[in-house]
Amino acid sequence: MTVSPAVVIGAGLVGASVGCALTRAGHEVHLEDRNASHAQVAAGIGAGTTRPADPQRVALVVVAVPPAALATVIIDALARFPRATVTDVGSVKAGVLDALWDSGGDVTRYVGSHPMAGSQFSGPLTARADLFTDRTWVVAPHRKSLPAATRDVRELVAACGGNEVIMDVDVHDSAVARVSHLPHLMSVLMAGHLNEVPDDQLQLAGQGLRDVTRIAGSDPGLWEQILGANSAAVLPELRAVRHQLNTLISAIESDGAAGARSHLVLAHLERGLAGTRRIPGKHGTAPVRYRQLVVEIPDTPGALSRLFADVAEAGVNVEDISIQHDPDRQVGYLSLAVTPDQADALAASMTSAGWAIGESDPAADRDT
Amino acid sequence: MTVSPAVVIGAGLVGASVGCALTRAGHEVHLEDRNASHAQVAAGIGAGTTRPADPQRVALVVVAVPPAALATVIIDALARFPRATVTDVGSVKAGVLDALWDSGGDVTRYVGSHPMAGSQFSGPLTARADLFTDRTWVVAPHRKSLPAATRDVRELVAACGGNEVIMDVDVHDSAVARVSHLPHLMSVLMAGHLNEVPDDQLQLAGQGLRDVTRIAGSDPGLWEQILGANSAAVLPELRAVRHQLNTLISAIESDGAAGARSHLVLAHLERGLAGTRRIPGKHGTAPVRYRQLVVEIPDTPGALSRLFADVAEAGVNVEDISIQHDPDRQVGYLSLAVTPDQADALAASMTSAGWAIGESDPAADRDT
Repeated sequence: MTVSPAVVIGAGLVGASVGCALTRAGHEVHLEDRNASHAQVAAGIGAGTTRPADPQRVALVVVAVPPAALATVIIDALARFPRATVTDVGSVKAGVLDALWDSGGDVTRYVGSHPMAGSQFSGPLTARADLFTDRTWVVAPHRKSLPAATRDVRELVAACGGNEVIMDVDVHDSAVARVSHLPHLMSVLMAGHLNEVPDDQLQLAGQGLRDVTRIAGSDPGLWEQILGANSAAVLPELRAVRHQLNTLISAIESDGAAGARSHLVLAHLERGLAGTRRIPGKHGTAPVRYRQLVVEIPDTPGALSRLFADVAEAGVNVEDISIQHDPDRQVGYLSLAVTPDQADALAASMTSAGWAIGESDPAADRDT
Repeated sequence: MTVSPAVVIGAGLVGASVGCALTRAGHEVHLEDRNASHAQVAAGIGAGTTRPADPQRVALVVVAVPPAALATVIIDALARFPRATVTDVGSVKAGVLDALWDSGGDVTRYVGSHPMAGSQFSGPLTARADLFTDRTWVVAPHRKSLPAATRDVRELVAACGGNEVIMDVDVHDSAVARVSHLPHLMSVLMAGHLNEVPDDQLQLAGQGLRDVTRIAGSDPGLWEQILGANSAAVLPELRAVRHQLNTLISAIESDGAAGARSHLVLAHLERGLAGTRRIPGKHGTAPVRYRQLVVEIPDTPGALSRLFADVAEAGVNVEDISIQHDPDRQVGYLSLAVTPDQADALAASMTSAGWAIGESDPAADRDT
């Protein structure tokens, strides 16, 4: 039990779930939170105890605090728990590491990590031991990390049921810059531009705009911390997109010139389509092209229940589901994604149950 | 019956649905399509007849063909049907109008229009008379449009059950540039950038990236036509976003400087959040802040049916629903959006039925 006893600092969703997973695996877990009631709630759901640990005995410290507080809390933990391996679950790794080098603390006992789970929910109440089961969990040792420290963090990942991915700190930060922070900023730029659009024009907004701008609705304060911690990795991505934007503007200008149908814009559109196909599919597998059956549903209690009862009756596994609400009418369209081999059977079954069934292109925008 | 007999040219989803709506309203409708089987399918579902109309008698022509063919087909229709008002249902208006001026045809009988319905489905099979019921339908007369022609197109909108919005051609094109074409290009730029991201880094992709890039999966050929037709309106929007992108890059550089926490990035994030709140809500009403209850569902047939049966039992109207599939695990999370006054009752009812209920921030990204 090399990771026992463990201390979890920060009893939010992720910290409390780590506590639950370690406790379930038989480890002794001590919970700390600046807000004592969070630690008590976490203890109440089985994440560990709020009793203080013996600092000399602690084997592992997991720091699960907001981005801006990470470095300070890690430095403090390295000092308070002199024999412990210290890790964190923050979404950015290099900046924290730089601060640790500057601190003069024993950085050899620190190995960063990043479980890809969590922040849609918040607070310890929704914590659970299996939050990390089969989730990607990046372990990012640095050049001075002790092999024993890396081993401890890998044991943590295993105890939590995560899928360990060993990744260099800079590769990790570049990855999240590209697949999380850049899309966030693109969403923010688009949403920000809506402040320039008059109300009467916004009446024409459709689902495509809503999807592109959804994540721009996230907490600005949290994202300021994340972006501040990863600015070095985010900047080159933004500059690359700026280059593509300049190219796109030139392409539209050029295609628009009389007689100059050079299809430069088409090349951008095809490059975008190719990019969407590179995103891994559900459960980390290769992308699957599902067929999308569409059912119109009245906006009344019970309609969805009847609909799903009929879907269940068809004996077909629905892979994904979404509702597009018609912005102007009291109806919605339910899209049911099923594997191609099941689509015809489902359509036939639903039709005979009296539902009007169509099929849609999941990528198409209804409001062109 | 000033719009009878009518000719619909292009028997895709929109054209065939117009035919169904006009037929239902008691009008005589003649269907034309370059692909004769499309017209026959449309006739088979009640959109009209494939018999040719008497050109001298035709009162209204509705052109519902792809963007690149619009001007040619409209010019031809103005010549073939010398007494008819001619309209179209294209998503861009000014370019077509310019081509009509240049054609020397009788442009006074042309009034453009744009029903905000449609292209998620395609083909006449999914057409239906109520496709436009309560949908925004922009009517865009030009300075030489005859009052009688505008009146005919307004009668068309009324017969189809649409919500008429009279809008200047240029205002319309600016609106779709901002709320449809610009978000499409932002999605394309983000998705295109994924071609530069190594596979191992794409493993870290989450729901936020998938949302932002979804519409970039649309048909590049169609979008080349749309953007080509609206380049004059799209370019200033792209340039405005480029300006904001430059400002954002400077802000990140500046916030990153030691000791210079000037919160310039925060201002961008807050501007984006404010923009998301300007998008009109469901059914065109003011945005409502729903509460999001989250239920974990096993990825097996019938689970959704049981879940919805229990939701129905609670007697609560679910306003919106979405499933986030965990990319690594055989489970999904179902988000149920309900009005704040119903959320507690639903949570209590579902909990007593044995479901684990959490609550989420709908805007938050799970994978920060």
